[in-house]
Amino acid sequence: MAEKRTEIGELGEFGLIERIHQQVKLANTSSLKGIGDDAAVIDLGNEYLLWSTDLLAEGIHFDLAFTPLQHLGHKAVSVNVSDIAAMNGKAEQILVSIALSNRFSVEAVDALYSGIYAACEQYNVDLVGGDTTASRAGLIISVSILGRVAKDKVVYRSGAKPNDIICVTGDLGAAYTGLQILEREKEVFLSNPNMQPGLEKYQYMVGRQLRPIARTDIVFELEEMGVKPTAMIDISDGLASELFHIGKNSNVGVRIFEDKIPLDAETYNTAALEFKIDPVTCALNGGEDYELLFTISSSDADKIKNHPDVHMIGYVHDKPKEFLLITKQGNAVPLTAQGWDHFR
Amino acid sequence: MAEKRTEIGELGEFGLIERIHQQVKLANTSSLKGIGDDAAVIDLGNEYLLWSTDLLAEGIHFDLAFTPLQHLGHKAVSVNVSDIAAMNGKAEQILVSIALSNRFSVEAVDALYSGIYAACEQYNVDLVGGDTTASRAGLIISVSILGRVAKDKVVYRSGAKPNDIICVTGDLGAAYTGLQILEREKEVFLSNPNMQPGLEKYQYMVGRQLRPIARTDIVFELEEMGVKPTAMIDISDGLASELFHIGKNSNVGVRIFEDKIPLDAETYNTAALEFKIDPVTCALNGGEDYELLFTISSSDADKIKNHPDVHMIGYVHDKPKEFLLITKQGNAVPLTAQGWDHFR
Repeated sequence: MAEKRTEIGELGEFGLIERIHQQVKLANTSSLKGIGDDAAVIDLGNEYLLWSTDLLAEGIHFDLAFTPLQHLGHKAVSVNVSDIAAMNGKAEQILVSIALSNRFSVEAVDALYSGIYAACEQYNVDLVGGDTTASRAGLIISVSILGRVAKDKVVYRSGAKPNDIICVTGDLGAAYTGLQILEREKEVFLSNPNMQPGLEKYQYMVGRQLRPIARTDIVFELEEMGVKPTAMIDISDGLASELFHIGKNSNVGVRIFEDKIPLDAETYNTAALEFKIDPVTCALNGGEDYELLFTISSSDADKIKNHPDVHMIGYVHDKPKEFLLITKQGNAVPLTAQGWDHFR
Repeated sequence: MAEKRTEIGELGEFGLIERIHQQVKLANTSSLKGIGDDAAVIDLGNEYLLWSTDLLAEGIHFDLAFTPLQHLGHKAVSVNVSDIAAMNGKAEQILVSIALSNRFSVEAVDALYSGIYAACEQYNVDLVGGDTTASRAGLIISVSILGRVAKDKVVYRSGAKPNDIICVTGDLGAAYTGLQILEREKEVFLSNPNMQPGLEKYQYMVGRQLRPIARTDIVFELEEMGVKPTAMIDISDGLASELFHIGKNSNVGVRIFEDKIPLDAETYNTAALEFKIDPVTCALNGGEDYELLFTISSSDADKIKNHPDVHMIGYVHDKPKEFLLITKQGNAVPLTAQGWDHFR
């Protein structure tokens, strides 16, 4: 029996999701939006329920050689809260499932959960259940999250219109640079266990990698300012990948300006001087910043232009396949992005 | 630094859940019931949302040497639907997350999802999202499920009252016996790969292990008969373990009769004659039958006494620590149960 074997790497994660998506038919009328956004949307009648999940696997998403369990617990919650924020909603409850081998002690589980509890308190989210099980190899954390949003406030990836302004929050590329630092220090430590890792001067970048914060503050502030984004997504896979998601779902193209991409000064110097990586590449393709990328109507530009943590980086246009980066020199370069692809 | 190390096996899975539970404080008013039942309960105002999750790990919950991926996908959905049924609710949507290593092909993923889609159709549940990722070791499937129930219909583990009648659906112990058969055939195959496994005569037991069916029919029929259970749980860890859960949560004891425990004839013969295991032990401690265990008011007994698939096996009494099995010989034997404990 010579059965056909197609490697998952040939499809990639997004290809795999697309393949699953195509075969799904929704039967329940309450299932308003399924696969294809940051969260599923369930119609509750008077408002929408937002529902998402993220699974973190040891050796793929985190390396316990340099990831404190407390930070890992916090991050597992934050990345889920970020998905609800990306729909313009407010997270309310989580379920946490863990699979762990017997090399973990009860004290290690306590450390993991202390980070989970801290995140619950920070985001005002309740831990209401989950599952615990043994694992033959490695730690797996699967978090599922529920949130709510008023029907007229929900924001999808699909609402961007030509001439909308593209905005990002915070700064980009630091989480990826932080990961490079942690991996370098791990190598140093492995080759000479007496060396203590010198992470003090990299605190910001390392913190962005180990303990990202979901931008629930921005969701609140946009509402305060009377701005409803036309499309939104969180930046988990890198700016370029998220721009493609918005462009594809909204059937539009984008034009962003290199000199408008927000970069932290330390991140810039560390990436460029120590790792010889273009800091813009870290922002475009690094991922894990968990900032928000959104588009707004140009008529809303005045309302946000003085916000210290929201940056206008470009605009939307009507050519769906044209995703361009305008370099500092004024050249138009096609954006390329795969985001993280763990299967390749 | 001599830090204290407590092995997870010292606590066990239930001890670990209890430890997590004790530290949780619920902040949102919509979080009606958290850890400690088959599903969390979220107050939607006019009805309750039920929310649960189950994680299946390769090498712990399933062995791919004898588990067809299609059945595994179906089972991953069924065990979650069963949790919603155990709250007397109706499942509506699922999220499915998978972590898999590159030894899995796209065709393997298709087989897994074909079982998931089949279960979705069978239970009228919509697949609305999830997460896919690589894994360093083994296949992990994490399913999260949402269901609904009218406020006056929800059934907890905590509602059993003295003199209530204890009921179970279907028959018990077959899934565990099926697992013994599959493991035996695997050993035979490993010692002589030319041997074809002879599973035909064990079809029922093997099917119960590989492709259990959630008893959504019973939830429907109880409503039709006008019977609302006082307490309910699904049998995932074995009858004895589930009786302890109901007893502990309801602050009552139970008395069940050995000769009333429903056993399938083939299961009885296979367990007793081929494996030399007491079939009653398979029912009490085997687990994975995914039948429903519930208590009803004695005044409802007449309504269900002719139901062909519901069996009255004992009654509830007011001594919280007295869990007794009355043997065929009339002796009262204390029940003991740990359920499955993968950490020991």
